[in-house]
Amino acid sequence: MPLVTVKMLEGRTDEQKRNLVEKVTEAVKETTGAAEEKIIVMIEEMRKDHYAVAGKRISDTE
Amino acid sequence: MPLVTVKMLEGRTDEQKRNLVEKVTEAVKETTGAAEEKIIVMIEEMRKDHYAVAGKRISDTE
Amino acid sequence: MPLVTVKMLEGRTDEQKRNLVEKVTEAVKETTGAAEEKIIVMIEEMRKDHYAVAGKRISDTE
Amino acid sequence: MPLVTVKMLEGRTDEQKRNLVEKVTEAVKETTGAAEEKIIVMIEEMRKDHYAVAGKRISDTE
Amino acid sequence: MPLVTVKMLEGRTDEQKRNLVEKVTEAVKETTGAAEEKIIVMIEEMRKDHYAVAGKRISDTE
Amino acid sequence: MPLVTVKMLEGRTDEQKRNLVEKVTEAVKETTGAAEEKIIVMIEEMRKDHYAVAGKRISDTE
Repeated sequence: MPLVTVKMLEGRTDEQKRNLVEKVTEAVKETTGAAEEKIIVMIEEMRKDHYAVAGKRISDTE
Repeated sequence: MPLVTVKMLEGRTDEQKRNLVEKVTEAVKETTGAAEEKIIVMIEEMRKDHYAVAGKRISDTE
Repeated sequence: MPLVTVKMLEGRTDEQKRNLVEKVTEAVKETTGAAEEKIIVMIEEMRKDHYAVAGKRISDTE
Repeated sequence: MPLVTVKMLEGRTDEQKRNLVEKVTEAVKETTGAAEEKIIVMIEEMRKDHYAVAGKRISDTE
Repeated sequence: MPLVTVKMLEGRTDEQKRNLVEKVTEAVKETTGAAEEKIIVMIEEMRKDHYAVAGKRISDTE
Repeated sequence: MPLVTVKMLEGRTDEQKRNLVEKVTEAVKETTGAAEEKIIVMIEEMRKDHYAVAGKRISDTE
């Protein structure tokens, strides 16, 4: 612990994902004092036809 | 907020998914008073070999 | 299945929650064809000091 | 209920998954007294480029 | 990894919870080959007024 | 989106939580390019008797 889950739309590059987990881990370590080796970050990608705001899916609004 | 996640088996049509997010958003708005544009609905599809009831996966019972 | 999780801020009344699970179940049944007795709806309440948008917690913006 | 979610890296065989849901269901039934037919077990597989420990993704450490 | 989450209604004893995490960990280790020290089990308790089946909350059916 | 959930043991101060959501939001914005006002961060606190590693709950190892 801590366990961090980042849910975001598909489409980010491998480089962005590498930086994301690194920077989020740093942010968690710096502010909570958790040991770095205990911090887990998981990325969950969402499809545009599976994500809706105000009743409309992103895939239906593009 | 509110954030709604609907976990269901794979296999619904795009039309069913479109109606699902629309009707669920309406239900949440109507009963909680949340502003429509704040309501997020996410669909998470599950594979039949990853979903089990009473120790048996759906894929092993068909 | 389907399993529906509704994450929302604390503060809704018992009546609102009763109506919420009822209406969401109806919406899911109507649009996915799932059998009513298979539909599970779970409410997860969030504290205002545990929910942030744009880096600010609701508790810090009121 | 209970609803059990097992998040693990991709790569287990179908046989391992079959045994996993069976044994986890038994463990839950035996220790909580829940009725077997009420116990749901869901497997969520994670990609190595979506799972990080100590700021490094598994895909970047192999 | 693996990360196991067990969602269940409130009311189990401390003893039941101790046995639950132990037996579930054993089941996961035995069937997936994961190293014991890497297996995390988390219990999430649900209130009866926050859990509904077929549109009715447990709290409204007792 | 992105939606970030941080699961961690109970016990952090309000100040730590304020900094946590701020720094995590910055990290996500900086690395994914997401607009700040779209980034949601949620904190989920876990009790020591509900979190186990290697089959032992934190509450049983202190």
